[in-house]
Amino acid sequence: MPFVNIKVTPDGLTPEKKAALIAGVTELLRVELNKNPETTVVIIDEVETDNWGIGGKTVTQRRAGG
Amino acid sequence: MPFVNIKVTPDGLTPEKKAALIAGVTELLRVELNKNPETTVVIIDEVETDNWGIGGKTVTQRRAGG
Amino acid sequence: MPFVNIKVTPDGLTPEKKAALIAGVTELLRVELNKNPETTVVIIDEVETDNWGIGGKTVTQRRAGG
Amino acid sequence: MPFVNIKVTPDGLTPEKKAALIAGVTELLRVELNKNPETTVVIIDEVETDNWGIGGKTVTQRRAGG
Amino acid sequence: MPFVNIKVTPDGLTPEKKAALIAGVTELLRVELNKNPETTVVIIDEVETDNWGIGGKTVTQRRAGG
Amino acid sequence: MPFVNIKVTPDGLTPEKKAALIAGVTELLRVELNKNPETTVVIIDEVETDNWGIGGKTVTQRRAGG
Repeated sequence: MPFVNIKVTPDGLTPEKKAALIAGVTELLRVELNKNPETTVVIIDEVETDNWGIGGKTVTQRRAGG
Repeated sequence: MPFVNIKVTPDGLTPEKKAALIAGVTELLRVELNKNPETTVVIIDEVETDNWGIGGKTVTQRRAGG
Repeated sequence: MPFVNIKVTPDGLTPEKKAALIAGVTELLRVELNKNPETTVVIIDEVETDNWGIGGKTVTQRRAGG
Repeated sequence: MPFVNIKVTPDGLTPEKKAALIAGVTELLRVELNKNPETTVVIIDEVETDNWGIGGKTVTQRRAGG
Repeated sequence: MPFVNIKVTPDGLTPEKKAALIAGVTELLRVELNKNPETTVVIIDEVETDNWGIGGKTVTQRRAGG
Repeated sequence: MPFVNIKVTPDGLTPEKKAALIAGVTELLRVELNKNPETTVVIIDEVETDNWGIGGKTVTQRRAGG
């Protein structure tokens, strides 16, 4: 029954990688907390680098060396 | 003053359906909790089936019988 | 399969009211979008009035006439 | 180490405005709470007017005078 | 730089289990997406069973056989 | 009409500091994006250090030098 939300930038995030993340976090919750995988929900949000900030700058600015 | 976030897959989610969801959940909060509709905020997030997982698989995989 | 998050202040939010919100929003998604109620997940967050702001003031300040 | 999520409609939200929001909120957290800017994370979600409701109507409806 | 939010009911969620979840999901993102663990942020929300609904009922109701 | 969610650890987060954060971020959105302060909503979530992870460890572990 857990709910997991993963926010990442979209670079390299293929359907296969998304499926691997979903399978992996569902398995982690089964192993660590004995949660039933059937009701574990995972949602992945893809966040563009213009919309993600760390250290007071956007990721776009940081990658440009800004 | 409540805030509601609804996450659904985008299939069949027309502007009219979105408006109906927003009207309906706002009314529900008025009826059940006497919340003023004027300040109830609702945000709908459309999540692609590749990005939604349940039971350790993406919805894309599940719909494909994977 | 929808996921709904409702944020409200805790005043008057009894277990019965919470159950009514969960039943109501699940039914709304069934009626409007034909979503299977069995996999609709609803999470209610109770937010204290000190932690909720609107119009640049906390709800605590607004209720005090501040 | 704070995490901030800002949801706004996309009109007028240029990369420069996004960068200004991220810089501004990171600075606010430094000034008010002495938080280290290096680990403050800000994510901006752009929400279409069809998907945002207030007062029981979508923003699209409200802007149309509906 | 990923951000992960995990929502679970609090039963059995010891500090050690929380640490294991955080370590596990951070490692998963390193392995699958080559994300730098130093900037992966994970936040765990503990949601009471009265506040969690699935299938139109609260988890409290479901555990009571309601 | 923007919605802002701020997640911070609770240390030093007095009602006055919360009010200052809410006023500051509302003003930032007015100045940068010309958003009407009356409909800007801000919610602050206080996250315990056991529930916050960065670099694969909880903040509790990091503060203990773990």
